[in-house]
Amino acid sequence: MVAAPRRAVVLVSGGLDSATILAMAAKQGFELYALSFDYGQRHRFELEAAVRVCAAARVKKHVMVPLDLRSFGGSALTDNIAVPKDRSESEMTSGIPITYVPARNTIFLSVALGWAEVLGATDLFIGVNAVDYSGYPDCRPEFIAAFQALANLATKAGVEGDGCWKVHAPLVSLSKAAIILRGRELGVDYSLTHSCYDPDTSGHSCGHCDSCQLRLKGFADAGLIDPAAYVKQ
Amino acid sequence: MVAAPRRAVVLVSGGLDSATILAMAAKQGFELYALSFDYGQRHRFELEAAVRVCAAARVKKHVMVPLDLRSFGGSALTDNIAVPKDRSESEMTSGIPITYVPARNTIFLSVALGWAEVLGATDLFIGVNAVDYSGYPDCRPEFIAAFQALANLATKAGVEGDGCWKVHAPLVSLSKAAIILRGRELGVDYSLTHSCYDPDTSGHSCGHCDSCQLRLKGFADAGLIDPAAYVKQ
Repeated sequence: MVAAPRRAVVLVSGGLDSATILAMAAKQGFELYALSFDYGQRHRFELEAAVRVCAAARVKKHVMVPLDLRSFGGSALTDNIAVPKDRSESEMTSGIPITYVPARNTIFLSVALGWAEVLGATDLFIGVNAVDYSGYPDCRPEFIAAFQALANLATKAGVEGDGCWKVHAPLVSLSKAAIILRGRELGVDYSLTHSCYDPDTSGHSCGHCDSCQLRLKGFADAGLIDPAAYVKQ
Repeated sequence: MVAAPRRAVVLVSGGLDSATILAMAAKQGFELYALSFDYGQRHRFELEAAVRVCAAARVKKHVMVPLDLRSFGGSALTDNIAVPKDRSESEMTSGIPITYVPARNTIFLSVALGWAEVLGATDLFIGVNAVDYSGYPDCRPEFIAAFQALANLATKAGVEGDGCWKVHAPLVSLSKAAIILRGRELGVDYSLTHSCYDPDTSGHSCGHCDSCQLRLKGFADAGLIDPAAYVKQ
């Protein structure tokens, strides 16, 4: 008799990082349950990318949870604040960016925790990165460790399984170039992903927001061409 | 010049406990921001009670966040599993009840955290109780402490304010009778609240589910009459 594969819940935004962690979780032998949020993003291209990325990774199930946080306000990703463009690396990495969404990763991991418990899974994957997003409190290793500790106290599985939860954040200390090279090794097709905060109406990336700049630099550092479609300059 | 009142985000289900913590937070001088969730409850009476309770407590703002977790399944409160009736006290308090909703309080506190951060608040109130709900992992003091530790790592306010978050769970070790007596002292009108898991179509409480039994016993122990409307036997 073959043992049933272990299940993992993977947070998938449709960006480069989440496509990579799907491939990493699959490589570790997990059956993949992908979770995305429709939280009132400025545009739909990210969610369309999430659907494409999950299909390519042959996930067992992909759930898109509607979660409208716009009534709270507080971020360039959901409000009508201008997305900053063409910032220098020091501008991008100093302080907490305007694109920080309050408690976002805490909320996403909490919902993932609930679904995982129903599935009988005790593994969560999140594509946070403390190198490029050093200003986001909820992208740091100490945040991930604290969430794992919470999971072990918050759930039936944690209480009965005595510390069985594992929050995987395999990208947390990798550079963007290292992430891309690892994904390529695992066969990730980055043309399916979307990273831009401010695409045009056809979904072409702007090339100038923080996210585009980090992505373009990552491909350049890796010696590769970014397959995303950019607005013609 | 009068200082602006400190703000607190208070989780309000419409039950007896949440009505009591609203009054306790007000007594401490907080300006109240009430948060409820429409998570696919079996019935609407709980949410209607939340609206009444918040109005009576003169909250500054009441937000009802739609959060549909039914696609996850896993609990009598959201699935079509029969609600257990007429259980003995030992049956109610042993093990993790079928009415446990996976990661519910983690999810609710996470969303409260996000809203609080936008409001500039660092105080959250939750009406968990480890006496009557001893089987719920996320109703214990150690869970509350772990969430507070997470909040201090997860947010801008936590990082910049060096451990400023406070998760208030003032009912955690009180008996139901003690909660009711405290609420009465503070002027809470419990006729506005709803506790029953399985009311009739007019909203009358069943009197036999775990929640009704705990409530009835609480009023009896306090030497008071429960003003809720029950189904005629």
